[in-house]
Amino acid sequence: MRILGLDPSLSSTGWGVIEVENNKVRYVADGFIPTDTKTPIAERLVMINKTLGEVIETYHPDEAAIEQVFLNSNPTSTIKLGMARGVVIMAPALYGISVTEYEPNKVKKAVVGVGKAEKTQVETMVKILLPGCKPKNNDASDALAIALCHFQYRGAYGIKYK
Amino acid sequence: MRILGLDPSLSSTGWGVIEVENNKVRYVADGFIPTDTKTPIAERLVMINKTLGEVIETYHPDEAAIEQVFLNSNPTSTIKLGMARGVVIMAPALYGISVTEYEPNKVKKAVVGVGKAEKTQVETMVKILLPGCKPKNNDASDALAIALCHFQYRGAYGIKYK
Repeated sequence: MRILGLDPSLSSTGWGVIEVENNKVRYVADGFIPTDTKTPIAERLVMINKTLGEVIETYHPDEAAIEQVFLNSNPTSTIKLGMARGVVIMAPALYGISVTEYEPNKVKKAVVGVGKAEKTQVETMVKILLPGCKPKNNDASDALAIALCHFQYRGAYGIKYK
Repeated sequence: MRILGLDPSLSSTGWGVIEVENNKVRYVADGFIPTDTKTPIAERLVMINKTLGEVIETYHPDEAAIEQVFLNSNPTSTIKLGMARGVVIMAPALYGISVTEYEPNKVKKAVVGVGKAEKTQVETMVKILLPGCKPKNNDASDALAIALCHFQYRGAYGIKYK
């Protein structure tokens, strides 16, 4: 069973795929989708949509997980994050793949053991929990952490989106 | 030349198509995409995406226009609107169709003549400017108003998204 973790943002959406077999987990792939701030938003969203489609068609995840949104106090930032998030959360659903949402604290607790962990701690634990994995960047690492969180909690917590 | 107007929202995205020939405009079609609040958000976004794809493949618009976002003071509402908006603004771009964004006041000014018009005034003017048109609801009427605004301003104002 494969899990796709997703960390959405307009400038760099992270993604990570892990495989679960006999309740053991292994690293499959990870990456991020950089988009140019000078490119029109509609085209940046198309790039996110198309890349995630390719990821899904390449790695065939069975389930997907996404972090619950960080509500920015700046409405313009919030709407931009929302636009990326809408496209990202829709990507697995277009393939009939369920998407479960987790609170940021739950993701950190699942991989580090505490809800208020630093980003570097999350990356360190991702590398330990997934031997051989060298996340491409922080966004990819966060996406793998979200996938690991879903591995721990699936069926138990989270808001199922399908 | 056909213009697709779009009025995005998670619960009911409005769309409207007009045709421009020899600088005259006529009504082609309009509608709205109701989604059930009990349905998971990812599936509601899939429904919006698929319906807009069908609209584009049926009416073959050459250009699209969308209203600039109303920034809600409630961050949860803003993120939901953002999610719908991301999927809606991406829909024409997936077909290589440019999307231009207009401020709400500009849309009202284009159809009613003043920037602070009521919703009913907008609908009345849409019916006058597009004889034979009976918008399906307010969202469809607003989408037609956005298309009419683009007809007036195209090339002159607005932020081109492609």
